[in-house]
Amino acid sequence: MYEPVFSPTPLQQLDTDANGNTFFLKREDLLPYSFGGNKVRIGLQYLRDLHRKGCDHMVAYGNARSNLCRVLSNLCAGEGVPITILSPADDDGQRREACNEQLCRVFGARVVPCLKTQVAQSVQQVMDEIRRDGQRPYYIYGDCFGHGNEAVPTAAYVPVYDEIRTQGTFDIIALACGTGMTLAGLLCGRRLRGGSERILGLSVARDRQNALAHTLAYANAWLDEPNRLAQADVEIVDDYRRVYGDYGEDVENAIRHMLRTYGVPMDGTYVGKAYAALRQYAARENWQNQRVLFIHTGGTPLFFDAIPHLL
Amino acid sequence: MYEPVFSPTPLQQLDTDANGNTFFLKREDLLPYSFGGNKVRIGLQYLRDLHRKGCDHMVAYGNARSNLCRVLSNLCAGEGVPITILSPADDDGQRREACNEQLCRVFGARVVPCLKTQVAQSVQQVMDEIRRDGQRPYYIYGDCFGHGNEAVPTAAYVPVYDEIRTQGTFDIIALACGTGMTLAGLLCGRRLRGGSERILGLSVARDRQNALAHTLAYANAWLDEPNRLAQADVEIVDDYRRVYGDYGEDVENAIRHMLRTYGVPMDGTYVGKAYAALRQYAARENWQNQRVLFIHTGGTPLFFDAIPHLL
Repeated sequence: MYEPVFSPTPLQQLDTDANGNTFFLKREDLLPYSFGGNKVRIGLQYLRDLHRKGCDHMVAYGNARSNLCRVLSNLCAGEGVPITILSPADDDGQRREACNEQLCRVFGARVVPCLKTQVAQSVQQVMDEIRRDGQRPYYIYGDCFGHGNEAVPTAAYVPVYDEIRTQGTFDIIALACGTGMTLAGLLCGRRLRGGSERILGLSVARDRQNALAHTLAYANAWLDEPNRLAQADVEIVDDYRRVYGDYGEDVENAIRHMLRTYGVPMDGTYVGKAYAALRQYAARENWQNQRVLFIHTGGTPLFFDAIPHLL
Repeated sequence: MYEPVFSPTPLQQLDTDANGNTFFLKREDLLPYSFGGNKVRIGLQYLRDLHRKGCDHMVAYGNARSNLCRVLSNLCAGEGVPITILSPADDDGQRREACNEQLCRVFGARVVPCLKTQVAQSVQQVMDEIRRDGQRPYYIYGDCFGHGNEAVPTAAYVPVYDEIRTQGTFDIIALACGTGMTLAGLLCGRRLRGGSERILGLSVARDRQNALAHTLAYANAWLDEPNRLAQADVEIVDDYRRVYGDYGEDVENAIRHMLRTYGVPMDGTYVGKAYAALRQYAARENWQNQRVLFIHTGGTPLFFDAIPHLL
């Protein structure tokens, strides 16, 4: 398989606020494959796992805006591995065009509509069909209920914790928390090295308890028994989440500011929302003289979907 | 002014063909500012020159798809320098929406329609208006006929020649040639260092004589008298150019191949066209055992305009 080799992604200093906090960006959006983002590292883990398990047909789940589905489709296209994507409509029942889904189709993915209320049945049905065709399907999330494969994506961000430490010393590492995979990987890295930075997940949709449970499940699937994390090891802020995909004026202003001042694109679903949350949270909690690293986890195709919002 | 600091952009090995030629990409599209591309380095030169000359209003010329106008608008937005863009319609008289122009508007650029047959008059008129408003306009190309400022953009790629030499040894460096600015900068770098690589400009629109004259004008505006280049120092291939913006099946196939195999986006106007030309030219000229570096000069927003072409 094509294994891109990555140098450390660029680390960029932003402003220092009135309380002496200095903000930095780690540009995971510039990973040099398929428009970058954390899902590049995570997608590579899934593809390796597919091979490890002797499978030959990738099955994913994600809506039209899914960064993970786009990266997986690209990786599969590169090797001629067929991929089927179960794609739910939005909560209002609508299906909206998005660059990520268009790219999935450019990569030759088979996109199968699926009801959000019937994911397990749909996964089971698709897996059975693929088996009847004589192929060995690999569902990225494990069993048809989405359990059993949590260690795989978590592995992607364990080494990134070390990569960050080669790039600087930070008091706080912050990032968007959707599924919790990326956060879990960094927490595992910190646990292995005995690091003491705060690592802060800014939840974009789930409430704190739910995000925490998912993050712990990912982390503890990867860690050995004696190293397992407890709830107190996971810091989630959920005060700034909104309905998935919804924009607020503060988020749009943060996105405009980052784009105009630093030429950095952020989407409104994950990264822009989390970055706006970080800056508001830092002010509310009255942080003083902290070195704060925000991980830009990508989503450039989502930015292009949303340009009209910024006009 | 905000001065982004760039590490060397990633260098990526591609395939080795049946004749033993190995192809490499230099990912200037990943420059960490405003969606990257060679126009980031060039735009920075123009902004510095505006300040050097004591001006306070940027004036540019470019159509809705111009990467340079997008980068200049971003740089100007970052500093609160007003920018006016003279924007011609396409040759068929149509004005088409493009991400680059939308981004210019997000950055607050003033976009003034302009006839291709009346550029000088339009530039003069806009400059006069800006002066009447008490501002000091800076037209990137110099006088209203577009002459006098050739040394400024050329300066952007002189140090990139050295950067490339720190990254590897190549027999041939190839790149898209539109205006000739980027090619001129690399040729100046080679002249200063006494380098011996072939540097090949793959013309995307102009015929060889025209591209050659423009490239020489840029290079010789920057070089001291004793170092000036002659026609024989500039290698331009014009066999694969097409009408500006036009696609061919071979270009689309090259774009699909690079995207699927390496996750690298290329647009069809500049980079994809030039890359397809390079591979065809290498085969036609029967290159043997060459190490060939192709410079990916960016244009990610143009890629997003063109996704429907790839479906």
